[in-house]
Amino acid sequence: MLEVKTPEEVLALIRREFVPVGGREETVPLSEAPGRILARDLTATEYVPDFDRSTVDGYACRAADTFGCSDAIPAILSVAGEVLMGEGADYDLAPGDCVYVPTGGAIPRGADCAVMIEYTEDYGDGTVGIMKPGVPGMNLIFRGDDVYPGKLILPAGRVLSPQDIGALAAVGETSVPVVRRIKVGVISTGDELVPPGERPGPGQVRDVNSPLLTAMLTGCGAQPVNYGIVVDNEELLRQKVQAAAAECDAVILSGGSSVGVKDAACRIIEGMGELLLHGIAIKPGKPTILGKAGNKPLIGLPGHPVAAGTVAQLFVLPLLDILMGKKQESHPVSAELTESVSANHGREQVNACRLYRRDGKLLAEPIRSKSGLITQLAGADGYFIITRDCEGLPRGAQIEVFPY
Amino acid sequence: MLEVKTPEEVLALIRREFVPVGGREETVPLSEAPGRILARDLTATEYVPDFDRSTVDGYACRAADTFGCSDAIPAILSVAGEVLMGEGADYDLAPGDCVYVPTGGAIPRGADCAVMIEYTEDYGDGTVGIMKPGVPGMNLIFRGDDVYPGKLILPAGRVLSPQDIGALAAVGETSVPVVRRIKVGVISTGDELVPPGERPGPGQVRDVNSPLLTAMLTGCGAQPVNYGIVVDNEELLRQKVQAAAAECDAVILSGGSSVGVKDAACRIIEGMGELLLHGIAIKPGKPTILGKAGNKPLIGLPGHPVAAGTVAQLFVLPLLDILMGKKQESHPVSAELTESVSANHGREQVNACRLYRRDGKLLAEPIRSKSGLITQLAGADGYFIITRDCEGLPRGAQIEVFPY
Repeated sequence: MLEVKTPEEVLALIRREFVPVGGREETVPLSEAPGRILARDLTATEYVPDFDRSTVDGYACRAADTFGCSDAIPAILSVAGEVLMGEGADYDLAPGDCVYVPTGGAIPRGADCAVMIEYTEDYGDGTVGIMKPGVPGMNLIFRGDDVYPGKLILPAGRVLSPQDIGALAAVGETSVPVVRRIKVGVISTGDELVPPGERPGPGQVRDVNSPLLTAMLTGCGAQPVNYGIVVDNEELLRQKVQAAAAECDAVILSGGSSVGVKDAACRIIEGMGELLLHGIAIKPGKPTILGKAGNKPLIGLPGHPVAAGTVAQLFVLPLLDILMGKKQESHPVSAELTESVSANHGREQVNACRLYRRDGKLLAEPIRSKSGLITQLAGADGYFIITRDCEGLPRGAQIEVFPY
Repeated sequence: MLEVKTPEEVLALIRREFVPVGGREETVPLSEAPGRILARDLTATEYVPDFDRSTVDGYACRAADTFGCSDAIPAILSVAGEVLMGEGADYDLAPGDCVYVPTGGAIPRGADCAVMIEYTEDYGDGTVGIMKPGVPGMNLIFRGDDVYPGKLILPAGRVLSPQDIGALAAVGETSVPVVRRIKVGVISTGDELVPPGERPGPGQVRDVNSPLLTAMLTGCGAQPVNYGIVVDNEELLRQKVQAAAAECDAVILSGGSSVGVKDAACRIIEGMGELLLHGIAIKPGKPTILGKAGNKPLIGLPGHPVAAGTVAQLFVLPLLDILMGKKQESHPVSAELTESVSANHGREQVNACRLYRRDGKLLAEPIRSKSGLITQLAGADGYFIITRDCEGLPRGAQIEVFPY
């Protein structure tokens, strides 16, 4: 029999046992790329900007022509013309000349700085006075300063942000290689379950795990495939798990609160490959099992939605990130605990909480309820962890909250 | 002429001048609800659970029948039967009797506690020994403990998380009233702009703001409507802005780096309603304008994508949150700055950064480049702010980073 593992051991096991799924790349237009995972390193194939540009409204000139000038003794330059936005400046600037250039405009060859209009005076006779000396490079962006062919724009595994989309548009990418959505089968088991749309009869409850896990999977970029509710029957369950494993990249089974069904799930997983884990030292979520058939994870979550959601958040999402090659982490926020929370059961405890700001301070209000009530899910903004050896946290403690 | 305002003044102005748009509610199935904004408070209409349940595998009994029992002197109870998952227990438990009940199973009337199977012994003759005394309520969830009719499940304005979806499924909601996506028109102006799919000629650059703003708008739950690129011509621009304002709930205009176009945008906005703002004391992003036609914001962003993206993140998204009635905030994460950053120009400075973890510490690496290069966008995980009166931040400073 496998032993109960600590959360750290489980994460290490997951990192050791699973690798990204193969044949993962597909190309999508830029407009559909936000939130998708970049399938490979993206490098630029061109220069941005493709010409030397001014970053100010003013006069492009040779810096040497302005050395030593001041308010009192301006440098007098001849205005050789004006650069228009969207047009090139494919000519040579003669010494002693300058051209008016708008922000972002091209500058002619020979010009090596731009002086802001504020430091110039137009004498109206074809000359301007420059009151502030330029230095070479001042107020200019040169060709390729931003991007040049071969420059790494974004690394593989990144979840594309709107800002990334802007950067890709700037370098002329109109489509992007992203990781195709992996398929994850979702199966709920339990004689007591009815579909969410039905009204439960005596002793029955709604299947909450299917919509919960479906939403979590969609949120992490996977494609959930729903296999419905299976009654507590080992043979029916085996057929369903095998069908799901044949069609999907991973299978999540939840439920089977009775010992018999848990054992059945273990037997089914062992029969399909290898059982890796039976029990996590965490509350809620202890009765969790994990196995694999090839590189396909077969996951058995607890039946109670709060426990299932907790284990999915802490272990299933990181596992799917590995399958999808996602490299991005989420980061905890620091917050002050509004009430004390006790914990003394020898297991790491995961507590849902609300986050809100008061007087500039971020506060975390633990969601209290009897063990495992479903309302722990509603309105929670994230969770914090009380370690195994900690007997609880006092009110006012500074904690790290992981936002959902 | 309106004066340049500080970022705080701009946010206060936005809160004062705009209210949620009307007719905002639409109903979507639960499966499409994640990420949507709840349009009104949701209260429960039924009990969850709808029956008294055991939270353990064991025996349901009357606590009084077990008082004083111990390992040495077990209480002997008659086993009156077994509760099956998914079936009711609609009968009275006689004193001195108990029934086997699985986790989540219903308990018969009269039973007021459940004793875990670990603390019992089956004598095989129709009786069990109870080694640990029960107390009323022990290991039970009563009808409505979790949810009862009228209980607030989720407040209006919340962005629905997968966990919220689970909670809604539990209370039998199969569809949810959410805020309809507001339409936001996006117009880029500038003679130098070419569509992202085209190769820029001399002096031209790609229109980055359209795809950038489109992705940001989609990400915040709005529906972008793209009006393309308008050349620097006041009359054409006026027609386009008026058309967009007629069709959308808000209009974002970006570009017009030249002074003439900025003035034109001001005149157009004033002609359509009221000009509220001309310039924000922030870097990048100073040349920003804001007006309104009725409750419709008309926003003029700087042409440079980094400045446009910064102003959109700091001011446009909060403004749209008001229009959509979104109540949820994002929270900064604490991180250590990996390099010093200077700032001494009398404006609040917004700096993009990367976030990564090393030796358990969260580090923020400022993205350095010449002013306003587009690559400041690529790969940035969030931003931090250097206040107006601060001359810079040293390496190792603990800063607050707002994730994108």
